[in-house]
Amino acid sequence: MTTQRCRDIAHVSAAELRTAVPSQTAEFLVAQLGMEEVARAGDSVYLHAWDDYEMFTIKVTGAPEPGIGKTWLRAASEEALDRRISAIEGAGLGGRWQDGECGLGPVYEFRDPDGHEIGLYWRTRWYEAPDGQRPALKNQAARFPGRGANVRRIDHINYLAADIPAAARFLEEELGAQLTEQIVLDDGTPSAIWYHVSDKSYDLVYTSDWTGSSGRLHHVALACDQREDILRAADVCLEAGIHIETGPHKHAIQQTFFLYVWEPGGNRIELCNAGARLVLAPDWRPISWTAAERAKGQAWGLKTIESFHTHGTPPVHQP
Amino acid sequence: MTTQRCRDIAHVSAAELRTAVPSQTAEFLVAQLGMEEVARAGDSVYLHAWDDYEMFTIKVTGAPEPGIGKTWLRAASEEALDRRISAIEGAGLGGRWQDGECGLGPVYEFRDPDGHEIGLYWRTRWYEAPDGQRPALKNQAARFPGRGANVRRIDHINYLAADIPAAARFLEEELGAQLTEQIVLDDGTPSAIWYHVSDKSYDLVYTSDWTGSSGRLHHVALACDQREDILRAADVCLEAGIHIETGPHKHAIQQTFFLYVWEPGGNRIELCNAGARLVLAPDWRPISWTAAERAKGQAWGLKTIESFHTHGTPPVHQP
Amino acid sequence: MTTQRCRDIAHVSAAELRTAVPSQTAEFLVAQLGMEEVARAGDSVYLHAWDDYEMFTIKVTGAPEPGIGKTWLRAASEEALDRRISAIEGAGLGGRWQDGECGLGPVYEFRDPDGHEIGLYWRTRWYEAPDGQRPALKNQAARFPGRGANVRRIDHINYLAADIPAAARFLEEELGAQLTEQIVLDDGTPSAIWYHVSDKSYDLVYTSDWTGSSGRLHHVALACDQREDILRAADVCLEAGIHIETGPHKHAIQQTFFLYVWEPGGNRIELCNAGARLVLAPDWRPISWTAAERAKGQAWGLKTIESFHTHGTPPVHQP
Amino acid sequence: MTTQRCRDIAHVSAAELRTAVPSQTAEFLVAQLGMEEVARAGDSVYLHAWDDYEMFTIKVTGAPEPGIGKTWLRAASEEALDRRISAIEGAGLGGRWQDGECGLGPVYEFRDPDGHEIGLYWRTRWYEAPDGQRPALKNQAARFPGRGANVRRIDHINYLAADIPAAARFLEEELGAQLTEQIVLDDGTPSAIWYHVSDKSYDLVYTSDWTGSSGRLHHVALACDQREDILRAADVCLEAGIHIETGPHKHAIQQTFFLYVWEPGGNRIELCNAGARLVLAPDWRPISWTAAERAKGQAWGLKTIESFHTHGTPPVHQP
Repeated sequence: MTTQRCRDIAHVSAAELRTAVPSQTAEFLVAQLGMEEVARAGDSVYLHAWDDYEMFTIKVTGAPEPGIGKTWLRAASEEALDRRISAIEGAGLGGRWQDGECGLGPVYEFRDPDGHEIGLYWRTRWYEAPDGQRPALKNQAARFPGRGANVRRIDHINYLAADIPAAARFLEEELGAQLTEQIVLDDGTPSAIWYHVSDKSYDLVYTSDWTGSSGRLHHVALACDQREDILRAADVCLEAGIHIETGPHKHAIQQTFFLYVWEPGGNRIELCNAGARLVLAPDWRPISWTAAERAKGQAWGLKTIESFHTHGTPPVHQP
Repeated sequence: MTTQRCRDIAHVSAAELRTAVPSQTAEFLVAQLGMEEVARAGDSVYLHAWDDYEMFTIKVTGAPEPGIGKTWLRAASEEALDRRISAIEGAGLGGRWQDGECGLGPVYEFRDPDGHEIGLYWRTRWYEAPDGQRPALKNQAARFPGRGANVRRIDHINYLAADIPAAARFLEEELGAQLTEQIVLDDGTPSAIWYHVSDKSYDLVYTSDWTGSSGRLHHVALACDQREDILRAADVCLEAGIHIETGPHKHAIQQTFFLYVWEPGGNRIELCNAGARLVLAPDWRPISWTAAERAKGQAWGLKTIESFHTHGTPPVHQP
Repeated sequence: MTTQRCRDIAHVSAAELRTAVPSQTAEFLVAQLGMEEVARAGDSVYLHAWDDYEMFTIKVTGAPEPGIGKTWLRAASEEALDRRISAIEGAGLGGRWQDGECGLGPVYEFRDPDGHEIGLYWRTRWYEAPDGQRPALKNQAARFPGRGANVRRIDHINYLAADIPAAARFLEEELGAQLTEQIVLDDGTPSAIWYHVSDKSYDLVYTSDWTGSSGRLHHVALACDQREDILRAADVCLEAGIHIETGPHKHAIQQTFFLYVWEPGGNRIELCNAGARLVLAPDWRPISWTAAERAKGQAWGLKTIESFHTHGTPPVHQP
Repeated sequence: MTTQRCRDIAHVSAAELRTAVPSQTAEFLVAQLGMEEVARAGDSVYLHAWDDYEMFTIKVTGAPEPGIGKTWLRAASEEALDRRISAIEGAGLGGRWQDGECGLGPVYEFRDPDGHEIGLYWRTRWYEAPDGQRPALKNQAARFPGRGANVRRIDHINYLAADIPAAARFLEEELGAQLTEQIVLDDGTPSAIWYHVSDKSYDLVYTSDWTGSSGRLHHVALACDQREDILRAADVCLEAGIHIETGPHKHAIQQTFFLYVWEPGGNRIELCNAGARLVLAPDWRPISWTAAERAKGQAWGLKTIESFHTHGTPPVHQP
């Protein structure tokens, strides 16, 4: 009855945001969040956060509607990658190998049971700052920008999904992730699940899509360093006319200090404080929150605002 | 040429401080650092930090001289524990099983090549707050104290050792840890090594003991949440007459924001910010610092003060 | 058309909270807010904040219902005091001299047009820390407590009042205060007014009492140092079961970073960050906010919660 | 024996930095400190900090050597200005009226007893953000930049001077300032004096020039909001190759949290936290520090580095 814990997924490494206004979305990521543009290809722009050892952190792609494109997960080793692909193919989710992009080696692309696109890979090129732009400290990928929210890396993805139990099986069996917290409805079914693959207390989250749709996004989260960075980010977004949806405040679930904004294309972005809370116990006992507990609001009493329950991307069009 | 990464040590869980003034040391940990006393046995006091899921974080033990007693490391599983013990015994460092203490199950106790006492274990009892003292949020071990430095858990141990290459082999081969940063002298020998077993950028550090002695301690580090907590801790220590050795400042190596104080028994304690910087790359490329780079001082230019190089516990007595 | 600016009131120095549970109110001020008890007299307890140069900051007095008792204002000089008393008596608000309490010299006590009790004085005894409790830095009144919110001094009082224009005349003509910001209804009448006597951007606030009652309190504000202190205070209040009404967030008006809690007796207490924003212009041009602007919520979009408009002390009893 | 306190000087409003590399100095103020260029005239650039209600905060002027040019002080009223000019002329320091620059009305220019140029004025034009660049909150002068140190206004000037007692008389009698803290040598002579004209604990400082020279500058200080802003500023200056002289740390004297850097032209700039500590007592009792106390170092034990005692601008050339 012990846990053998060989983590096959090392971390979430990047995400693709679809947006009808790709230039504005990229400009927001640069000017307000502190990222740097590192490459362009077709109608996509690749952006890098200063503490990301890989080539890119967010890919922005022009599309008719907002939403999440691919999510990239780095395997912990070549063998770990093989193991995960076997599991994925065994579950009938099998995808196919693609040439990598922007520094990534070959990527195994498939869809989770709800239809979100995921890319698994092992080989990757490390980010190297251009000459004349090397960071002062050599244990850091890129210069600290000193601009806006100064996000340091991607933190997590929160997907909307039609079938949460199916998502849970996928996370556990195909990805080898571990549940840390969940919301469980009175009838016993989970309506939101937080899983981690790293020592962070969560990396991948699925939330029940109240519209019953598939493949949608709740939010992509980028990591700031200190809570003060998130307070300052609120002022920066206020000045830039970026819609602040809710926060800054502290979640009861996972205790994340958060700010939610909508990037110009409409996707919800969370700025969260990174890493102060870690889940180091290899046999962590998942925390379950009831609907009644959830209704109490956030840690310090803020009521969850309506749009947090209803806004997802792409929007759902009524027939 | 890939890395198979199955971490057998989950994390550093606790450390024992020897001190000639155990009551004062424990009082410092409670009043200035925000820990709680959870048990006493013989001349030892067990103290708990609010975010530690296990029963204790620091054990304070009366002794003629200051220094480090045991360091406890939790295995990632029963099998991982077996694997590590085999490696340890294979290296001729074999120890013996002891009954656990203060919530720990059976502990396999042995000494590293330099003589520091280490306890490995898998089974453990989780901390449960007494009735009437439950934390407001159920994903938290104990109430947030709101007192002094509010340390949340142990962060790392920095041992002094006579033979750094031997320590490196021990960390890699017997514990399965990974090197993240090191200081390498001009003749190619490492003089200080930082290894991690978790996603934190380091958990166990060995620094060359300039006296050639064995088994000594440079410091034990406790994790604060925000940099502001460390600034406030400086005021708290100032008011209590606790010796502030250096800081607050930011290390170039590992980029830790730090404060070093000497607890009343003389052991050096670091307060550091926890977790904003993570090393998530499974194939992290260790950073090497030269003596010349080291001489430049800390990240923002603070020169390393003399006592940081000379003070260790126990003190070395000249014949 | 210039402003001759000789400030006769130096600052708000202390306030008296009435409460049906004085022991609990005092315990909250000590344990959660970081104050120290300095004296008791009758059913009153005097509490001191560490950066207050005078003897007490808050007086807690047992009473059937919560509410504000006296507010003490220190004059800038003996002559300034005389000038203010002449103005007050000229306005028909004349009061009488009382013996001071807890370190205060003689106090001229009177009521503002809405009935709130105010004490004006010049002579005062400075706080001196008891032997063995001197602060480490001699330019500081008392030891930094390192406990809870660590409030450093009183910041401002926000009174509810039936007649805001009458309050404005009183502040300007009798106290010599200056308007910095106000809410002006569409019919041109002010519904809330912020005045300063110091370089802080406000010290005394009057808000229209929607019940038409007189002499009530909206809140007493205590100053924290950094925004981080206010975030930490939220955790401290959460753990102690103190009702958090709203925040932490940033007001659009005055840009104060705030947390509102209800002390155990029911009075609203604000924790605010002190002093980063100063109004140094001697000819400051008051900022007027419309009801429409006010309806937009706080700086970062938080909607003002209902109780913020309805809760005052003492409660209003319906016939 | 009371103090009649009618402050005739409202605040320090701006300072002129001489520099041999004016473009680099201005670029540093914009890129690393977060100011905005608002005007140019001749070889001067005017820069504005976002919370300054007037037109400019720092004037950068090309000159063969670094140093302080003019310091501008705003009077509290027209009458206050007249009173100060009478005092200055009575002391034989009389200067002359000049046309104002960059928004200032007529300025009365004179020199302090040590030769530093000071401009006194009452009339001033308020800063108005250009169309399309209005701040989101109308009680704020300019947009929050979200860039580098985000300095909000000038905080204080620290002049080097040959004769400190003469400077003290000038501050008290000609400017009407009040002493809050000082360093007094064992022979009873002051070697550094901190005076305030506002509720900030100091605005104008004179430090004994160890070279016996006159008219030199120790540093100009710009105000940040939170201590975290100063920590972040250290990273920003590190990346930009700006020389960090000392800090971040906390002064014992005045308790300022500080960072000292040298701008590209060589003038020392302090970034300090603004306003948390106020001196509100109208009869504040000046704090005197002995040379022995000063030798203990800063609040948390940092020893004062040598260059802090020796570097001033312009440099002193040996014959």
